[in-house]
Amino acid sequence: MEHTGLGGKSIILRLEMNTKEIKFGQVASAIFEAGGDMVAIDVIQSSGDITVRDITITVTDSAHISTVTETVQSLKGVRLVNISDRTFLMHLGGKIETQPKVPIQNRDDLSRVYTPDVARVCAAIQEDPKKAYTLTIKRNTVAVISDGSAVLGLGNIGPYAAMPVMEGKSMLFKQLAGVDSFPICLDTQDTEEIIATIKAIAPAFGGINLEDIASPRCFEIEQRLRDELDVPVFHDDQHGTAVVLYAALINALKVVGKSIDQVKVVVCGIGAAGVACSKILLSAGVGEIIGVDRAGALTRDETYEHPMWQWYAEHTNPNRVQGPLSEVIRGADVFIGLSAGGLLQREDVLSMAEQPIVFAMANPTPEIQPEAVEDIAGVIATGRSDYPNQINNVLCFPGIFRAALDCRATVINEEMKLAAAEAIASAVPADELNASYIIPSVFNQNVVKAIRERVVKAAVVTGVARRVPRE
Amino acid sequence: MEHTGLGGKSIILRLEMNTKEIKFGQVASAIFEAGGDMVAIDVIQSSGDITVRDITITVTDSAHISTVTETVQSLKGVRLVNISDRTFLMHLGGKIETQPKVPIQNRDDLSRVYTPDVARVCAAIQEDPKKAYTLTIKRNTVAVISDGSAVLGLGNIGPYAAMPVMEGKSMLFKQLAGVDSFPICLDTQDTEEIIATIKAIAPAFGGINLEDIASPRCFEIEQRLRDELDVPVFHDDQHGTAVVLYAALINALKVVGKSIDQVKVVVCGIGAAGVACSKILLSAGVGEIIGVDRAGALTRDETYEHPMWQWYAEHTNPNRVQGPLSEVIRGADVFIGLSAGGLLQREDVLSMAEQPIVFAMANPTPEIQPEAVEDIAGVIATGRSDYPNQINNVLCFPGIFRAALDCRATVINEEMKLAAAEAIASAVPADELNASYIIPSVFNQNVVKAIRERVVKAAVVTGVARRVPRE
Repeated sequence: MEHTGLGGKSIILRLEMNTKEIKFGQVASAIFEAGGDMVAIDVIQSSGDITVRDITITVTDSAHISTVTETVQSLKGVRLVNISDRTFLMHLGGKIETQPKVPIQNRDDLSRVYTPDVARVCAAIQEDPKKAYTLTIKRNTVAVISDGSAVLGLGNIGPYAAMPVMEGKSMLFKQLAGVDSFPICLDTQDTEEIIATIKAIAPAFGGINLEDIASPRCFEIEQRLRDELDVPVFHDDQHGTAVVLYAALINALKVVGKSIDQVKVVVCGIGAAGVACSKILLSAGVGEIIGVDRAGALTRDETYEHPMWQWYAEHTNPNRVQGPLSEVIRGADVFIGLSAGGLLQREDVLSMAEQPIVFAMANPTPEIQPEAVEDIAGVIATGRSDYPNQINNVLCFPGIFRAALDCRATVINEEMKLAAAEAIASAVPADELNASYIIPSVFNQNVVKAIRERVVKAAVVTGVARRVPRE
Repeated sequence: MEHTGLGGKSIILRLEMNTKEIKFGQVASAIFEAGGDMVAIDVIQSSGDITVRDITITVTDSAHISTVTETVQSLKGVRLVNISDRTFLMHLGGKIETQPKVPIQNRDDLSRVYTPDVARVCAAIQEDPKKAYTLTIKRNTVAVISDGSAVLGLGNIGPYAAMPVMEGKSMLFKQLAGVDSFPICLDTQDTEEIIATIKAIAPAFGGINLEDIASPRCFEIEQRLRDELDVPVFHDDQHGTAVVLYAALINALKVVGKSIDQVKVVVCGIGAAGVACSKILLSAGVGEIIGVDRAGALTRDETYEHPMWQWYAEHTNPNRVQGPLSEVIRGADVFIGLSAGGLLQREDVLSMAEQPIVFAMANPTPEIQPEAVEDIAGVIATGRSDYPNQINNVLCFPGIFRAALDCRATVINEEMKLAAAEAIASAVPADELNASYIIPSVFNQNVVKAIRERVVKAAVVTGVARRVPRE
């Protein structure tokens, strides 16, 4: 089976039919013969000989959409007015809205939430800016900010096209963790302009979720904003991935019975996510991490133009291993792929240590198809929803920001990320843990609660919480 | 009666009482004797000798709050834990929230609104950026942006303290006109930085409502953004005020039976709002407008450092009248005050033409108290809610942005502002129009509808609409 990644699809065809020329039964037959499964019909208009109907049809894939629509268009007396599919329909007019928390029912309400009485609230905040956390949306609001330069598998698609992803993220923030958030897509890809813009708009927000910003610019932007703002700044592509990866590894190691300080880990693909994943594993106590990219294993015997590679070489690969992936992988306990489809071979996995852990997270095509190694791997995980063990950022960002907001953290530090990973891992009950279930579902309602509890504790212990929330 | 502008007030006192030392009845008596009217009691905690209760009390004004709280604090066995009033309580945690428009109920929904299927929507926008208007929140979302430099009567209070006003505005946008909006307060007061920031965050928005930005910077910021963005940019302090002022004048002139092209208008206070009001009156056909500020009447015989005063002098005061307000006002038909409390005297109004129209809009104290001239003025209006004829921006911004979004206007031009004013004026039925009712209530549900209809028409006629909306 080919994995299109699109899942089952519905399309809606709006057809204008001249009943003198064609009967609806003929149209229905033609759709059926083209393999389309009609699941709903809505009459939009019916006057004289002209009838307009919306026909909802389940189809298998994009090619099938073409087959069905071409069939319909070839019929005499039928005009295809419009074609929509469910995904596009769910995006009409955007996916989020802003709502007043209380209605303004009369002039008295109006004078409280707006002039003149709001002035007393303004004055209270002016006197003590910390009150912004109690008297404005800052307490519960995160900005989801992208420059549209590295969106999903699409690459540099710009701010307009990136909006649907950021809106989707805002939906997830609210639904999964009750966090209000607002999507901002920036019409600039200049590092300094991005930093200046985010600093300028920061007052309304209790946290900044950076998203889909290209490497290496993402590193400097995040670091500078962490230094210059007093609210958490979190590049989800780096740290969200790292947190969930580490959560998966905690449980995978339990399944294969190995200890984190004794495993050899090979990370393939040293971009933003690869660096963040390696850093969290170093913090977690992994001794031997070897990074591999186009240049082969990164080693301190070489010098690299890319400053992050240079840093990486200096802080990993203690045994100065050299060579391509196929050599470096020998004897490794864990493979972490954040690179591109097809880079790992079955022979590579055969050369790994006993019970190898294979996290092939390239999207949409993993470094190796799980089917190719399911007989020889100890645990397999991917970034995809159609295999077991999906390493999905959605498990991390709602909960970690819920915690950061609730304790008014100034940053999300390494200890908080480790705590989040442990919380995610803990959401898989010990008696259910197995090679096909190392990661909880994104709909598991215990995840956010578990993250919040542990991350707040870590923030308080490390002194970055400005408030200890009640339970 | 002293007008505090605060309306009736409720406060909530949280009291911790030691029942060994004092009975609640004694506390209640003390509050009653201090003039406080207890309207609700909630027991928060009661254990052993300690009881904590929230007491809601109606008070008359701020001084009264002090009297009541001091009385309570003087009682032995009572500790005042906290004092809240209804206005502050309405602000707890902010006044708006973001909401998903549809719930994400299962993995299928998740894959549509987020990865992987959202990628098809992104790709569609990348191919045709205009689709941002159908597939993202841009279609219905306005940014409410301030630098906190000229907020209400409070002045330069900065971005944190300005947030409650902007949040209030967002509430009104949604409740009155169904417009989603998000408040952004900028942590910079540098003209170039403000312009750069707003341009950078513009892609998500279908319009930009500038708010409470000090003069003269507001002029340049608005003009530059109008030139450089393709969505409407509207500084509400200028144009919202101007639109509602003109609406009020249309109806006031009907009441006194004068024609707009034959009246002499004196504008007192040539700041951002004064300039905008004068401009709309020039567009509307007023022939003689004289601006007065600290320097007296602005006239083309002088030169002014402030570029806006220079522009003003060159475009108004055709008869080159000179002198202070008390001289210039003689024989005028209309006084428009956008300056400070008490600047206009009864003798000044007595020197005006027959049936003088006095719009004393300074806040919180008008240029002249309506009571002082109600026997000699034809029509009086103020900026306050506690007199008849409140000239309130809330009448304009929801409807004018509703119209601009619905027709995807590139700008809000002069014709659209005039149309909005006419629409607001038309919301007062001819048979109800009188000197105490020239302006509709902000809760009049016909206003937004009337504005939308006329403003869309004006946008289409002047060629700035990118779409003709259905009714």
